[in-house]
Amino acid sequence: MEREELAGWLRLTLTPGIGDRAARQLLAAFGLPPAVFGQTAAALQQVVPPSQAQALLAEPEGLARQVETVADWLRAAEPAGSRHVVTLADPAYPPGLLNIADPPVLLYVQGALPAIWPPALAIVGSRNPTPQGLLNAREFARSFAQAGLTVVSGLALGIDGAAHEGALDGAAPGALATIAVVGTGLDRVYPRQHLALAHRIVEHGLVVSEYPLGTPPLAPNFPKRNRIISALSQGTLVVEAALKSGSLITAGQAAEQGKDVFAIPGSIHSPQSRGCHALLKQGAKLVESAQDVLEEMRPLEGPRRDAHADSDGESAMREDGLLGALGFDPVSLDALVARTGIAPADLQAKLLEFELRGDVARLPGGLFQRIAAG
Amino acid sequence: MEREELAGWLRLTLTPGIGDRAARQLLAAFGLPPAVFGQTAAALQQVVPPSQAQALLAEPEGLARQVETVADWLRAAEPAGSRHVVTLADPAYPPGLLNIADPPVLLYVQGALPAIWPPALAIVGSRNPTPQGLLNAREFARSFAQAGLTVVSGLALGIDGAAHEGALDGAAPGALATIAVVGTGLDRVYPRQHLALAHRIVEHGLVVSEYPLGTPPLAPNFPKRNRIISALSQGTLVVEAALKSGSLITAGQAAEQGKDVFAIPGSIHSPQSRGCHALLKQGAKLVESAQDVLEEMRPLEGPRRDAHADSDGESAMREDGLLGALGFDPVSLDALVARTGIAPADLQAKLLEFELRGDVARLPGGLFQRIAAG
Repeated sequence: MEREELAGWLRLTLTPGIGDRAARQLLAAFGLPPAVFGQTAAALQQVVPPSQAQALLAEPEGLARQVETVADWLRAAEPAGSRHVVTLADPAYPPGLLNIADPPVLLYVQGALPAIWPPALAIVGSRNPTPQGLLNAREFARSFAQAGLTVVSGLALGIDGAAHEGALDGAAPGALATIAVVGTGLDRVYPRQHLALAHRIVEHGLVVSEYPLGTPPLAPNFPKRNRIISALSQGTLVVEAALKSGSLITAGQAAEQGKDVFAIPGSIHSPQSRGCHALLKQGAKLVESAQDVLEEMRPLEGPRRDAHADSDGESAMREDGLLGALGFDPVSLDALVARTGIAPADLQAKLLEFELRGDVARLPGGLFQRIAAG
Repeated sequence: MEREELAGWLRLTLTPGIGDRAARQLLAAFGLPPAVFGQTAAALQQVVPPSQAQALLAEPEGLARQVETVADWLRAAEPAGSRHVVTLADPAYPPGLLNIADPPVLLYVQGALPAIWPPALAIVGSRNPTPQGLLNAREFARSFAQAGLTVVSGLALGIDGAAHEGALDGAAPGALATIAVVGTGLDRVYPRQHLALAHRIVEHGLVVSEYPLGTPPLAPNFPKRNRIISALSQGTLVVEAALKSGSLITAGQAAEQGKDVFAIPGSIHSPQSRGCHALLKQGAKLVESAQDVLEEMRPLEGPRRDAHADSDGESAMREDGLLGALGFDPVSLDALVARTGIAPADLQAKLLEFELRGDVARLPGGLFQRIAAG
């Protein structure tokens, strides 16, 4: 990016009172930053309140220094080209972020910027997890990475760190293993305990921030960046979370963005499971394994195949009669009548027999499910 | 009950091939047992298949001996009158059982038969629970009993036994603490380890069986009696259960009977939680405390009060503005607009502020929830 172009974008983000929503509205109204800053106060006031229009006319304090800082930071990249400032107007800007109301105007990115942003899942959770919670985060992340998904998290201590590490363990060479969305400037790794982890992430993934270089850890920035974690992901898994926690904010943002929210249950006596249980009560999907999550993700990867809809119906009949027709998914009596042609009363008698034998379980909602042996 | 009357009912239950459904149909068609046995084969064939009609014409083998056995058993009750044979035609028959397709024709009951069957909750679960599972069963049962509910279970080892014990601990003197629905004849306590518990239950509750005196523990009878456990209860709580388990059958029957199914979550690595998680995936209600269950039961006890609908709306405004209007239940933005009259955009800004302060959580489905301090 040319220094002048960079200066225009930085000026937009550094102008006091101009947030991501207002910046996007200005860009939509006038075009690129030079065009925005070429407007009169009157024109700007068509889009933003007078005080903000006034602020846009003056160059913000410290702009020249910040342009210098960013240019130096880009130049110091090792390997060369591994640091990026990605603007809303850049084709490399992650499309998932464009679907939210307040996409960051600029993203600072360190790592190998992908041509196409990969399918990703967020894993978030407590900074004070249980030992089992840490293991779960690591194992789920490893499985997601092995399945070819990028794991997005927030580089925090606890669940976040374990998720990044699991993804680094599981990813194929060359894959974008994991993305850390941080709440500080990219020149300020936080927490310091994750400095080595951040270096490993940059080698096999990305570290991303919306905050200007030099931004220290500030409490309000952490929940705010959570919307980026969920927006970069097709779903968000909460591994362990207390009731008052940033993870619940991320989960809420994921749900608002129309994404799946998954939660791992735990003991009713564990404070670290209360947040997950609250989410589950509100309709989040209970998951016991990475497979549970991956099954929900399939529709996004291609047309989903109903295991029993067509040809399988017949072959099942040949295999093992009713048990074959049952398959291993929950199924209603009506669906079984349709699949097998057996009269409802006979079917119910047969199902009771299987139930008493332990081959079939009766589930809430009048559904039956075949139980796998062993 | 007169010996002749008893003989008629016993003959109905002892006639080979006549199950609970057929018996109920015969009673509905012809009246009390003497009327049934006064019919011709032709008349009986209007209701049951020819082979069953034929069987009804002959007195079943061993009837006289069984009448003697039951009469002796009733006579031997200590205290006198504490043993009962309750027929479908008896006003003391539990109304909850009349709503299922195959209510038992006879119930053998030991304990003080109630004039009105009390509001009850079933607690079921694994015969091989974790130590925490046992404690949970006991604590939930104690809380339910303290709240005035009768706890119904199956007298099995593990969760069932702990539930009965918790209910005995928690119930007020004179209350019907707990009901054990067993799968053997009432003269055959099973398992033997629960003999002392069964005696305590009879003193403060009921032991109930649909099986003739002398019936030994037979595998198919145990899942079958589960329908009685769920039918006597307004809801069924599964504390811990493996995937293949009788508890899931009980839960399925409860759901089929239109009753609530509650499940306690646990570690995803605990086999004893898999059944609960399967139920939760299918829509059972996740509960973390007895209070969670009692809140769901309230509508059955009387009209439910919406904590924020009417007068509270105003007082909340006086109390603490928006936080008061939020209450502690999840609430949608639309509902908050209606409650407060604040414009949606302003409301969202305010909610974000609370969220960042940790006073409000954003939940899936666009809901907001106030978080209690401490």
